[in-house]
Amino acid sequence: MYNFVLNIPTKILFGSESRKQLSSIVSSYGNKILLVYGEESIKKIGLYDEIIDSLKRQNAEIFELNGVASNPRHTKVDYGAKICKENGIDVILAVGGGSVIDCAKAISVTANEDCGCWDIITKKTPPHEAIPLITVVTVAGTGTEMNNSCVISNESLKIKRGYSNDLLYPKVSFMDPVLTFSVSTFQTACGCADMLSHVLDTAYFMPGDRMDMLCVVMESISKIIIRYGYIALREPNNYTARANLMWASTWALNGILKNGIRQPAVCHIIEHEISAYYDVNHGLGMAIILPKWMKYVLNSENACLFAQFGRAVFDIDSANNIECAELTIKKLEEFLYEMLGLNSKLSEIGITEDAFEEIAENVCWGGSIGGIKELVPQDIINILKMCM
Amino acid sequence: MYNFVLNIPTKILFGSESRKQLSSIVSSYGNKILLVYGEESIKKIGLYDEIIDSLKRQNAEIFELNGVASNPRHTKVDYGAKICKENGIDVILAVGGGSVIDCAKAISVTANEDCGCWDIITKKTPPHEAIPLITVVTVAGTGTEMNNSCVISNESLKIKRGYSNDLLYPKVSFMDPVLTFSVSTFQTACGCADMLSHVLDTAYFMPGDRMDMLCVVMESISKIIIRYGYIALREPNNYTARANLMWASTWALNGILKNGIRQPAVCHIIEHEISAYYDVNHGLGMAIILPKWMKYVLNSENACLFAQFGRAVFDIDSANNIECAELTIKKLEEFLYEMLGLNSKLSEIGITEDAFEEIAENVCWGGSIGGIKELVPQDIINILKMCM
Repeated sequence: MYNFVLNIPTKILFGSESRKQLSSIVSSYGNKILLVYGEESIKKIGLYDEIIDSLKRQNAEIFELNGVASNPRHTKVDYGAKICKENGIDVILAVGGGSVIDCAKAISVTANEDCGCWDIITKKTPPHEAIPLITVVTVAGTGTEMNNSCVISNESLKIKRGYSNDLLYPKVSFMDPVLTFSVSTFQTACGCADMLSHVLDTAYFMPGDRMDMLCVVMESISKIIIRYGYIALREPNNYTARANLMWASTWALNGILKNGIRQPAVCHIIEHEISAYYDVNHGLGMAIILPKWMKYVLNSENACLFAQFGRAVFDIDSANNIECAELTIKKLEEFLYEMLGLNSKLSEIGITEDAFEEIAENVCWGGSIGGIKELVPQDIINILKMCM
Repeated sequence: MYNFVLNIPTKILFGSESRKQLSSIVSSYGNKILLVYGEESIKKIGLYDEIIDSLKRQNAEIFELNGVASNPRHTKVDYGAKICKENGIDVILAVGGGSVIDCAKAISVTANEDCGCWDIITKKTPPHEAIPLITVVTVAGTGTEMNNSCVISNESLKIKRGYSNDLLYPKVSFMDPVLTFSVSTFQTACGCADMLSHVLDTAYFMPGDRMDMLCVVMESISKIIIRYGYIALREPNNYTARANLMWASTWALNGILKNGIRQPAVCHIIEHEISAYYDVNHGLGMAIILPKWMKYVLNSENACLFAQFGRAVFDIDSANNIECAELTIKKLEEFLYEMLGLNSKLSEIGITEDAFEEIAENVCWGGSIGGIKELVPQDIINILKMCM
């Protein structure tokens, strides 16, 4: 069983009422605020005006970085860091989904360094400190609001890289399920696929002796994602569904399930390369790749892992591990492609095989990649072809 | 559904290896250390020598407070605080179970005040700061290693009081399941009853609209406590069992399950009064009281809560809530009294009815006490008589 360290300093304020404290909490870190957000959605739901009004009542000086798109670019981060440097920003307020928050996280550690953000993401330059970061979550999925990681894309190099550092923990995250009522069907579905993939790819489907307690908790959270993902798609304003999904998405990647695991999250690494080349939504990419990876790596040794999940989450009644694992993959596909309505093939979303060899090399870093089965570049190509 | 705030600053180092970092982490808070522990058990397992040796290698100046008994007394806390004041203690290291850690928590906030600890526990004097506290857990049960509460007894007043303050969070807690191998059968059983009662009495059996996600996680943790409690009693050196119990006990009372609940934990309050009069082991007291409280409050409105637990945890197959709730109580009693082998009656552990009226008044503070059914003093007396 793995040893582990757990230390999550982020404070969570969950529920609509809590946002009344937003401006006073933000202002407690200083007067000069960089507001980071995406497109127009936060204006449409009135959140932008609400936040600006409340901050102005605290006499805050507000600077803005808007237009943060999905798969946030290192150039956007550098531009945000420049605003911080030039204006002596005291605190960053990120309002949005995972991309906005990840961009703000990267800005927070770049703003105090002489280098650009890519040097930090690629670990050339270790950051020394971070500008305090507060987040207001508007999309459930990535879990970034309570963890120490961000994912940044370098468009010119066609590389998307995850980066972890304890400086990246937000100080405070506001989580109001009501804010996710207006999230589109597609984004809601992608969020559900993303959170389920965090449970499975970063923690549950791992080699070695796991702690049973964490396995049963992961099975419980997976059931919640499946149960309420279905409801949220049909009743977008269902508070119970949105609240359960929102909190499940945080737990899926805040570190409490992953205790001690040092193996790579293989499907995430494959998906990051795909996204870097083709700018795919991460949750959608994970939905396409995960079941194919399961089919490809399935063997008599690891079947028990997939089978355990299927028995607990899908109530599959089969004593044969291989058969049960195959039924588990089938059930997972039904959830992702039929219930959530996501695409099942990369070819359906405009991806061709041209870059597969390069992607496979990048995934394996010139060698191989671990997990429950060691994979070399040809394996990655085979998995990607199964996704076509 | 409840809104909530979650903010747990304690760092957990789980596993045997991590204790190599103990002396350097303790010393990072200063050179003068107060070591708080109980009886001889930590000497028997070699832990005392290991810790003293490693701290001395860091040239630490070590002061000791030993002999902390279960249901720690306010007089012991005051004595510990006096040592801190007289010697300018920089950091407190608590090595033991819940009583030792609770005593050390109370010392940490008393040492900087002019008053005695009872003024703090009874909220007469709010503490301003705390001496940093590090813990090494040797008994799984109370969950105090990762929360902001302590329970202190005033022997002369015959009162046992819980006290919560964010200053009480330990900075770091070391959790090594191996240290619990030598915990006696009785203490192991009491610890299991304690952690299960935390899940049920402080969070699961509460009125109002709970978040499903937390309910299923609580059900999962309860199953783990039952599964591994049984194993640990029969195989005390079973690492898997001890590790699952240890981490389950932390989760059961670190706040992640209890989000937003402001109702009193009724059975805990009754048990604290019993313990204050009769110096009972808390886990044993909870094991005796909880099922009787369930029987007493059970009605057609709250039966669904007990039934939901029974269906999920004991696989009870009954569509009738009252019937299912009654079977749930029966199964819970089987676990506590047959599997764990704990006493089922207060009369078996030397308790008489003499103080029941006074206890009932103290529980209700002259009025009534909430939870899933409002109870007045006569109700408390009735429940206590059911425990005889």
